[in-house]
Amino acid sequence: MSRTTGGREPLHLNAFLMSTGHHEASWRLPESPAEANADIEHYKNLARIAERGKLDSLFLADSPVLMGDPGRRPAAKLEPTVLLTALAGATRHIGLIATASTSYNEPYNLARRFASLDHVSGGRAGWNIVTTAGADAARNFGLDDTPLHRVRYRRAAEFVEVSTKLWDSWADDAVVADKERGVHALTERVRRIDHVGEFFRVEGPLNVQRPPQGYPLLVQAGSSEDGKDFAARYAEAVFTAQQTLEEGIAFYKDVKQRARLLGRDPDGVKILPGIVPVIGDTETEALELDAELDRLIVPEYAKRQLAQTLKLAPEALDLDAELPADLPGEDEIEGAKSRYTLVVELARRDRLTVRQLIGRLGGGRGHRTFAGTAEQVADTIEHWYDSGAADGFNIMPAVLPSGLEVFVDRVVPILQERGLFRTEYTGSTLRAHYGLPRPANRLFDTVGSAEGHIGVALA
Amino acid sequence: MSRTTGGREPLHLNAFLMSTGHHEASWRLPESPAEANADIEHYKNLARIAERGKLDSLFLADSPVLMGDPGRRPAAKLEPTVLLTALAGATRHIGLIATASTSYNEPYNLARRFASLDHVSGGRAGWNIVTTAGADAARNFGLDDTPLHRVRYRRAAEFVEVSTKLWDSWADDAVVADKERGVHALTERVRRIDHVGEFFRVEGPLNVQRPPQGYPLLVQAGSSEDGKDFAARYAEAVFTAQQTLEEGIAFYKDVKQRARLLGRDPDGVKILPGIVPVIGDTETEALELDAELDRLIVPEYAKRQLAQTLKLAPEALDLDAELPADLPGEDEIEGAKSRYTLVVELARRDRLTVRQLIGRLGGGRGHRTFAGTAEQVADTIEHWYDSGAADGFNIMPAVLPSGLEVFVDRVVPILQERGLFRTEYTGSTLRAHYGLPRPANRLFDTVGSAEGHIGVALA
Repeated sequence: MSRTTGGREPLHLNAFLMSTGHHEASWRLPESPAEANADIEHYKNLARIAERGKLDSLFLADSPVLMGDPGRRPAAKLEPTVLLTALAGATRHIGLIATASTSYNEPYNLARRFASLDHVSGGRAGWNIVTTAGADAARNFGLDDTPLHRVRYRRAAEFVEVSTKLWDSWADDAVVADKERGVHALTERVRRIDHVGEFFRVEGPLNVQRPPQGYPLLVQAGSSEDGKDFAARYAEAVFTAQQTLEEGIAFYKDVKQRARLLGRDPDGVKILPGIVPVIGDTETEALELDAELDRLIVPEYAKRQLAQTLKLAPEALDLDAELPADLPGEDEIEGAKSRYTLVVELARRDRLTVRQLIGRLGGGRGHRTFAGTAEQVADTIEHWYDSGAADGFNIMPAVLPSGLEVFVDRVVPILQERGLFRTEYTGSTLRAHYGLPRPANRLFDTVGSAEGHIGVALA
Repeated sequence: MSRTTGGREPLHLNAFLMSTGHHEASWRLPESPAEANADIEHYKNLARIAERGKLDSLFLADSPVLMGDPGRRPAAKLEPTVLLTALAGATRHIGLIATASTSYNEPYNLARRFASLDHVSGGRAGWNIVTTAGADAARNFGLDDTPLHRVRYRRAAEFVEVSTKLWDSWADDAVVADKERGVHALTERVRRIDHVGEFFRVEGPLNVQRPPQGYPLLVQAGSSEDGKDFAARYAEAVFTAQQTLEEGIAFYKDVKQRARLLGRDPDGVKILPGIVPVIGDTETEALELDAELDRLIVPEYAKRQLAQTLKLAPEALDLDAELPADLPGEDEIEGAKSRYTLVVELARRDRLTVRQLIGRLGGGRGHRTFAGTAEQVADTIEHWYDSGAADGFNIMPAVLPSGLEVFVDRVVPILQERGLFRTEYTGSTLRAHYGLPRPANRLFDTVGSAEGHIGVALA
């Protein structure tokens, strides 16, 4: 039953964790720990706050490269599967979504790590599948430049196919541990995958038994045309940046429709726009906090990054003028297409100077910053939800931990009162939180299928 | 101060964890949990027992392939960096050594994972560097067969060079978090590595700041000529299989001498032979337990694996005859050379039938099984230590957790009484436990060196 019918299915909330917060200047506040980005106790605290709020999941963005200027903000990041494994031990219920690149990993290794995280966490792993734009990342892996956008997405699709086959290479009933007969796993219930494709040849089977969730939750966050096609085909949750309600509704309809055309149940793809809540006791107080953060931005850093996104030299940007008129179209960009378009459209629509644009991007990097009271934030969430722009929200607090604490302690109770959000966890897995089924095993749908099975058949 | 001078420096003890134990039939005992290999509570229990015994470290072997027949024994394995991250949260002192392959990983990704584990664990990470033999592993990564032994070792050496450069790409003092000036890290203290070699081009810098230990402890376990050369150059601890005291002394001298010839302090390379202790109240009870385990071996499985190691068809082996006479020499083997030689020499030396050889290998896969009382095991350890065959031991209990519990509760106190082993942890890092120094940063030995630095220099 889709919530677009007007019913009151609970919405979904994800906590997007990032060192001292999503505002680039958040680390300069007195409250912020100096080395939050490598401080496991800081992250454990965040995870426990989110779990106290009964949130569906935690999420870590990632790229295998030092992103941006390390002078500007905490730029180093612990590897997400490692950090989320550590957080699994500090929590009991909340889901754990790690970003990992299909361009710079091998399917066997990555499928195994996610299977391991799913086992260790009792079925709480999710994978945000990214193709990783940018020549700087490519140069950490022996390449001169990023592979073409379409090629990256073709590789991503094959990567997911291989991964799901590997997770399916053990039937759910493979391990019998028959001590009497001396048979640990039924060899006919473990099989090679013998994958041969454009990018990968992988024999299998995986060396980890099938994950508790079957597959980790599959998440996607690119909003280009290729990205939306990919989401419609594979994603079960989509993180997206939408600045206006109208754009949010259009995106929501677009992805659901693409999924429908591929024969999928559109309810099986949850859409979660990002929101950067800046919460005060009054709206004025919230706006003041937001302005204080913007005043802490160092413009030299931000201008340089904006120039990179726009493929310009930093000198081509004037802090007190609008963007140059002759920018390339999205189709000429081989990097992060949807990011590029979002920035350009935001600047053009609101006729922002570079300095103003930097302020807008500094808070949520293009996600919707909303400064107001807890009631106002809850109203916005409800309005977007009821308008068919969202199945839930990706919560990106400007400052951590305080912004997450305020959200959990003040906004969540309002959503619970309105019947929009759970008051207790009712399931034990990430899939259960999102109301998504455990996938069937595609390699063992017929019981006793012995093709490609491995090992010795004992008498 | 070498312990070969007769002094009583403490010895080192590592707990080699493996599902239900190192004896292949251990899972068939009534006490063994059915799915121990994916059971995080089982592993947390093992880690806590080892820490109760004040052991230096835990260790997990690994290969990115399903090893052996999943019918025979628990063959699936959680990925070690994930599993050890989970164990970091369940312990406070003990070191955590994960095996990872240089043939089937990218240095940027792996260096980052180990740096992350070192941060998360407060300086307790170790990396057992392996090159991964075997065509079956190769076929999970798009190759038809394993790369040549020498090529694998050349790649391993370059992999370690790249990894250490990446760990050095942040000076220890790079992060200043100067909130007043708005400078998080000093950009001139973070730099590219611009590595260009035979196997890798990696620009850097790493996106994780320098690990608490500088580098994770570097461990190695191959005993071929290439393996010993590699150990002498890079390893700080060596796990090795030695069947007799004489062989153990020869190996110990050989590796220390190779290290000396390379200008290294031989005390900086700790040698830890494996021992499979089977402990009883009396020697008779211990031997009976050992025999009981051997009776539980299913010979069909073991014969098939032995045939694989020897590059023979299973039919070429007769359970009640010795090995065939015309086996190839080690130089003709491209796989696990030292493993091959160990098995052949063991069989020839003791004139074992295939059935007897299977029994010997079933316990410790070529490591020294020692059945006796706790006192006898302690005597053996002391004798090997005093004879210059070991700086410590890699403890491989035949059955887990019971074998580790008995070792910790009965053998460790004897070693402590004799002044051979610590009674409390005195340091907080894995390097401290092994008495090894924190490596200096090779890229920032001259303060203020700005070559290759990244980011914006603020006025």
